[in-house]
Amino acid sequence: MKNINYLALLLLAMCSSAWADETLATTAKNIQEIRISLDSVWVILGGILVFFMQAGFALVESGSVRSKNTVNVLMKNYMDACLGGLVFWLVGFGLMFGVNSTGWFGLSHFAPNDLDDWNWNLLFFQMMFAATATTIASGAMAERIHFVAYVVSAAVVSGFIYPIFGSWAWGGLFNGDGWLKQLGFIDFAGSTVVHSMGGWVAFAGIVVLGPRLGRFGKNGQSHYLAGHNLPLVALGGFILWLAWFGFNAGSTINANVSIGRIALNTHLAACASAVAYMIYALLRGKAILIKTTINASLGGLVAITAGCASMTPIYAVITGACAGLVVSIMPYFMEKLRLDDVVDAVTVHGFCGAWGTMAAGLFLENNMFNSDILIVQALGVVSAFAWGFGVAYIVFKILDVVMGGLRVDKQHEQRGLDYTEHAELSYPEFQKDVTFETDNINKRH
Amino acid sequence: MKNINYLALLLLAMCSSAWADETLATTAKNIQEIRISLDSVWVILGGILVFFMQAGFALVESGSVRSKNTVNVLMKNYMDACLGGLVFWLVGFGLMFGVNSTGWFGLSHFAPNDLDDWNWNLLFFQMMFAATATTIASGAMAERIHFVAYVVSAAVVSGFIYPIFGSWAWGGLFNGDGWLKQLGFIDFAGSTVVHSMGGWVAFAGIVVLGPRLGRFGKNGQSHYLAGHNLPLVALGGFILWLAWFGFNAGSTINANVSIGRIALNTHLAACASAVAYMIYALLRGKAILIKTTINASLGGLVAITAGCASMTPIYAVITGACAGLVVSIMPYFMEKLRLDDVVDAVTVHGFCGAWGTMAAGLFLENNMFNSDILIVQALGVVSAFAWGFGVAYIVFKILDVVMGGLRVDKQHEQRGLDYTEHAELSYPEFQKDVTFETDNINKRH
Amino acid sequence: MKNINYLALLLLAMCSSAWADETLATTAKNIQEIRISLDSVWVILGGILVFFMQAGFALVESGSVRSKNTVNVLMKNYMDACLGGLVFWLVGFGLMFGVNSTGWFGLSHFAPNDLDDWNWNLLFFQMMFAATATTIASGAMAERIHFVAYVVSAAVVSGFIYPIFGSWAWGGLFNGDGWLKQLGFIDFAGSTVVHSMGGWVAFAGIVVLGPRLGRFGKNGQSHYLAGHNLPLVALGGFILWLAWFGFNAGSTINANVSIGRIALNTHLAACASAVAYMIYALLRGKAILIKTTINASLGGLVAITAGCASMTPIYAVITGACAGLVVSIMPYFMEKLRLDDVVDAVTVHGFCGAWGTMAAGLFLENNMFNSDILIVQALGVVSAFAWGFGVAYIVFKILDVVMGGLRVDKQHEQRGLDYTEHAELSYPEFQKDVTFETDNINKRH
Repeated sequence: MKNINYLALLLLAMCSSAWADETLATTAKNIQEIRISLDSVWVILGGILVFFMQAGFALVESGSVRSKNTVNVLMKNYMDACLGGLVFWLVGFGLMFGVNSTGWFGLSHFAPNDLDDWNWNLLFFQMMFAATATTIASGAMAERIHFVAYVVSAAVVSGFIYPIFGSWAWGGLFNGDGWLKQLGFIDFAGSTVVHSMGGWVAFAGIVVLGPRLGRFGKNGQSHYLAGHNLPLVALGGFILWLAWFGFNAGSTINANVSIGRIALNTHLAACASAVAYMIYALLRGKAILIKTTINASLGGLVAITAGCASMTPIYAVITGACAGLVVSIMPYFMEKLRLDDVVDAVTVHGFCGAWGTMAAGLFLENNMFNSDILIVQALGVVSAFAWGFGVAYIVFKILDVVMGGLRVDKQHEQRGLDYTEHAELSYPEFQKDVTFETDNINKRH
Repeated sequence: MKNINYLALLLLAMCSSAWADETLATTAKNIQEIRISLDSVWVILGGILVFFMQAGFALVESGSVRSKNTVNVLMKNYMDACLGGLVFWLVGFGLMFGVNSTGWFGLSHFAPNDLDDWNWNLLFFQMMFAATATTIASGAMAERIHFVAYVVSAAVVSGFIYPIFGSWAWGGLFNGDGWLKQLGFIDFAGSTVVHSMGGWVAFAGIVVLGPRLGRFGKNGQSHYLAGHNLPLVALGGFILWLAWFGFNAGSTINANVSIGRIALNTHLAACASAVAYMIYALLRGKAILIKTTINASLGGLVAITAGCASMTPIYAVITGACAGLVVSIMPYFMEKLRLDDVVDAVTVHGFCGAWGTMAAGLFLENNMFNSDILIVQALGVVSAFAWGFGVAYIVFKILDVVMGGLRVDKQHEQRGLDYTEHAELSYPEFQKDVTFETDNINKRH
Repeated sequence: MKNINYLALLLLAMCSSAWADETLATTAKNIQEIRISLDSVWVILGGILVFFMQAGFALVESGSVRSKNTVNVLMKNYMDACLGGLVFWLVGFGLMFGVNSTGWFGLSHFAPNDLDDWNWNLLFFQMMFAATATTIASGAMAERIHFVAYVVSAAVVSGFIYPIFGSWAWGGLFNGDGWLKQLGFIDFAGSTVVHSMGGWVAFAGIVVLGPRLGRFGKNGQSHYLAGHNLPLVALGGFILWLAWFGFNAGSTINANVSIGRIALNTHLAACASAVAYMIYALLRGKAILIKTTINASLGGLVAITAGCASMTPIYAVITGACAGLVVSIMPYFMEKLRLDDVVDAVTVHGFCGAWGTMAAGLFLENNMFNSDILIVQALGVVSAFAWGFGVAYIVFKILDVVMGGLRVDKQHEQRGLDYTEHAELSYPEFQKDVTFETDNINKRH
C-alpha cells in the first residue's frame, strides 16, 4: 500500500514535471519563432528603406544636372537598382559572405536558390547595400559618360569591387572572417564599406573622364553649371535621410531596444551637419545654398554611419558638425584640382565616410581616443581607398579602351545625353529648343 | 506522521504544479498577445506601403500625360484613394469577405463599425488593395474621360467589380470560401485579383473611349504623344517598387521568417524584367526608353505577385524576365489594334498579371508543371478577364449614356482637362500660352 | 530506507520545481525583451514616418508658391527638420517631458546624453513631432519672411512654444503630469498639441507679416497667386497622408492590436473629408480644385488625430467630413479678413485641429456627448490658442524689431527670395527672365 502511495506520488510529480517540460518546450519554441519573425520584419523593413535610397539618389542627381541629361541620370540610377540586385545575387553575395578561408574573399553561395529561411532576409538587406554603393558614383560622372559603359561599370562595382572589400570588413556569415574584421575594424553600417567605397569609385571615374565641357575656363576659372530642378534635389535629400534610418538602425539585424539611440544619433548628426554649414556660410558672408545644405546633411549621415551604435548623442552631434565643415570646404579643394564632381559625391561619401570611420574610433563609448583602435580604423580607411580607387581606375581605363571611349562625343555632350542615348526628353513641352526633333526621336522608339 | 509527510509532499508537488500552471498560462497569454501585436504591426506596415502605391501611380500617370491634363490625372488618383477607402468600407469589404454561402459573393459586414480587433487590421490592408485595383485604370483612360464619370466608375470598381472577383479567389474570412479558392487557385498577393482586374477594366475603358485626338493618323500611322515630365514617371516607378514589398510580403498577414524570400523574389523579378527589356532593346538596336524600362520593372512586379511565396529565386528571375519581354512587345500589338493606352496599363497589369498567374502554377515549388494546377490557374485568368472586361464594358457604356458622354468634348480635349474640368493649371508660370486665362479661372474658384 | 525514499522524492520535486522556476524566469525575461524590442520597432517606425512629414510639407508648400520663392520655402522646411531635431534635443525634451513639479513645464533631461535605453526611442519619436509642429507655420508665411528671422522663430517654436504646451497635455514622463493631462484632456496624437499649435503660430505670423504684395487689391478684391507646381503639391499630400499613419498609429507607443482601428479611422477621416469637399464643390457649381482637395484630406487627418484611438469608424467618417467642410469654407473667411495664408495652414491645422479636439470629446466611445469632457476639451483648445497665438505674436514682433524687419524689402519680395536670400534658382533653365543674372549669383556662392 505504501509502495503504491510512493508510486502514485512519484507518478504525479513526474507527470506534472513532464507536462511542464512539454509546455515549456512549446513556449520556448513559440518565443524563438516570434523572435525570428520580429527580426525578419526589422531586417526586411530596413532593406525596403535602403531600397528607397535609389529614389533619393536618382532625384538628387537628376535635379543637379542640366535638363538635357536628366533621363540619362535617372536611367543610370534605375539600372543600378536592377543590376545591383541581379549581380549581387549572382556573384556578389558569394564573394562577400560565402565561405572565406583566406580572409580576402568568399567562395560559395553564388546565385543562391536554396538558403536557410533566415538568410534570405540577410541577402535581401545586403543586396540593397550593394546597390547603394554602386549608385553613389553615377552622380559624380553625370552628363558625359556613355550609358552602356556606365552600366557595365555598375555591374563590376556590385559584383566585384564592393563585395570584395565588404568581405574584408563584414565577411564570414558561414565560415571565416575577413581580415579587417579580425583586426576589430569598426564600421557598423558602412561609412567606409558602402559610402567611401562608392566615393572612391566616383573619384576614379571623374579622374578618368575629365571635367564636363564648359566646367572650367581656359584660364583655370571655374563655371558653375546649375542643376535644373532644385525641388527634386530637396525631395531626394529628404528621401535619403528617411532611408538612412533603415540603413543604420536596420544594421542591428536583430530587433532590440538599442535601435532608438542609433536612430537618434543618425538624426542628430544630419541636423548638426546642416546647421554647421549654415553657420559657416553666415559667418563667411556667403549665400546659404540649398544644394550644399542638403549635401551637408547627407555628409553628416555618411559620417555617423560607422559609429552610430557605439557613441553617445553628444558625439553624434560633433561627428555630424565636423562632416558639415568637410562638405563646406572640400568641394572648393576639388574644384582647385579641376576635378568635376557633379554632385560632390567624393566629398559627401568619400571624405565624410573616411572622417566618420575615424570618428567611430575616436568617440568609441567607454574607450575613447585609443590609439590601437585608431590605427585599425585608419588601416580600414586607407585600404578602402587603395582598393576602391585603384580597381575602379583600372576598370574605367579598360572600359575606355574596350568600348571605344568611356566618354560620349563632344557633339553628344553638347546636345545632351537624353537625346543621343535614350531618344527621350525629360520635359518635351518646356525644352522648346529641342522639340522639333521629336519626329526623329519617334523613329528610334 | 507518515501520512502528514505524504500530505506535505503532495501539497508541495501540487503547489509547485499549480504555480507553474498559472505562470505558464500567463506566459502563453503574453506570447499570444505579442504574436497578434507583431502581426498587427506587419499588416499595418504592409497596408501603409500599399497606400503609397497611390502616389506611385499618380506620378507615373501624371508624368506620362501632356501638361494640360496633369491636374486631372492627379485628381483622379487622389479620388481613387478616397473613394476606394470609403466605398470599400461601405460595401466592398462585405461583398468580398462577408459570410459567403454561395461561393460567389459575401453578404455581411457592410460599413462595419464593430469588428473584432484583429479584423480592423485586415480591413485596413484590404482597403488599400481595393484602391490599387481601382487606380490602375485611370492612367490608361487619361486625357479624355469626364472627371465625374470617372469618379463614378472608380466607385463601382472599388465597391463591386473588384470585391466580387476578390470573393471568388480570396473570400471567406468569416464563413464560406469563394469558388476559385475552393478549386485551389494560386494567387498569393493578387497578380490576377488586383492587377489583371485593374488591367481588364482599363481595357474596357479604352475600347469604349477610343483613342486620344491625334494619337493615330488617318492612314493608320501612330503618333507618339510624349509625357511631359519623365522625372515624375521615374519617381513614381521607384515608389511603386517600394510599395510592392508591402503588397507582396505583407500578404503573409502573419509575420514570419518567410517574408525574406518573398521580398527577395519580388525584387529579383523586377530587376530581371527591366534588364530583359534593356537587352531586348540593345539587341534590336532600339533606344532604351525610360518609360519602358520602368514599365518593364512594374510588369515584373505584377507577374511575381501571384507566385512570390511559392517559387525559388531562380524562377522569380525567369518570371520577371518573361514579363520584361511582354512589356517590350505587347504595346506594339495594342498600337496595331489602334487601342490607345496612355501608360500601357493593360500590358503591365493585365497581360503581365495573366502571365504571372500562369507562372505561379508552372513554377510551383515541389509541384512544377502540374497540368491540373495549370488548368485551375487558366480558369482564374479567363474568369477574371470575362468578369473584369465584361462588367466594366457595360458600366462604361451605361455611364456614356446616363452622364451624356463618357468622353469630354473635342474642344475640351484639345484645350486640356485641367482648364475645362478643374480650373487649375499644373505649371501656370511655364505654360505660357494659357496664363492669359487666369482671370477666367479665378472666377470659377 | 523509507526516509531516503522521502528525501529522494522531495529532492526530485524540488529540483523539478527549481528547474521550472529558472526556465520560467528565463522565459519571462525573453518575453519582456521581445516586448520591448517590438515596441521599439513600432515607435522607431512611427518616428521615421513622422520625419517624412517634413518632405510632405516641403512639397505642398514649395509647389504652392511662385517659382521665384521655391528654394526659400524648401530651405525653411529643411531647416525646420534640422533645428527641430537639435533644439528639441537641447531644451525642448527637458521642458516637455522633464521632471515637472508645477504642471506647467519640465526642468530636467536637457541635452540628454545618458538616458535609459527605452527612452531614446521616445525622444526620437517626440523630436519628430516637435519638428512637425514647427514646420506648419512655414507655408503660411511664405514668399515674404526673412530667412534668418524665420529660422530663429522656428527654433523658438521647437524649443519653447511647442514643448511648453506639450508639457501641459502630455508631460510627465519621469515625474509630475501636466495640468491639462490631470484634467483628463483627450488629444491622442496631437490635433491640438501639434497641429493647432502650429496653426496658431502661423496665424500670428501672417498677422504680423501682412499679406503678400498683390494679394489684395486697393478696393479690397483678392487676387489668387497661383502655385507654380501642382504635381509637387499632390505628391506632398500623398506623403503627408502616408506619414500620418505613423503619427497616429505610432502614438500608441506600445505595439498592439489596437493600431488597426486607429489606422483605419485615420484613413477613413481623410477619405471622407476630401469627398465632402468634392460634393460641396459639385453642389455649389464650383470647380473641384486639387489644392483644396488635398487640403481637405489633410484637414480630415488633422481632425481625426485627437480621437483616432477612441471613436468607432462611423464617427471617424463624420469627423473627417466636417473637417472637409471647414476646409471648404474657412479660407474664404480668412480672405475676407485680408489675411494671407499661402497654404491655408491656419484652416487646415488650426481650425481643423480645434474641431478634431472637440470631436474627440463628442464622439468618445462609450461616453458620448458628455458635457464635463467637452468642457475640458474646449479648455484645451482655448488655452492652446491663447498660448500659441499669444507667444508667437510677441516673438514675431520682437524679431521684427531686433532683426530689422521680419519681412523682406519690397524689391526683394518682387524679385523673389530665391535670388535675394539664397543666390539659387529652382529651375534656372525655365525661368528665362532671370538667368541673365547667373554670373552675379555665382559670385555669392
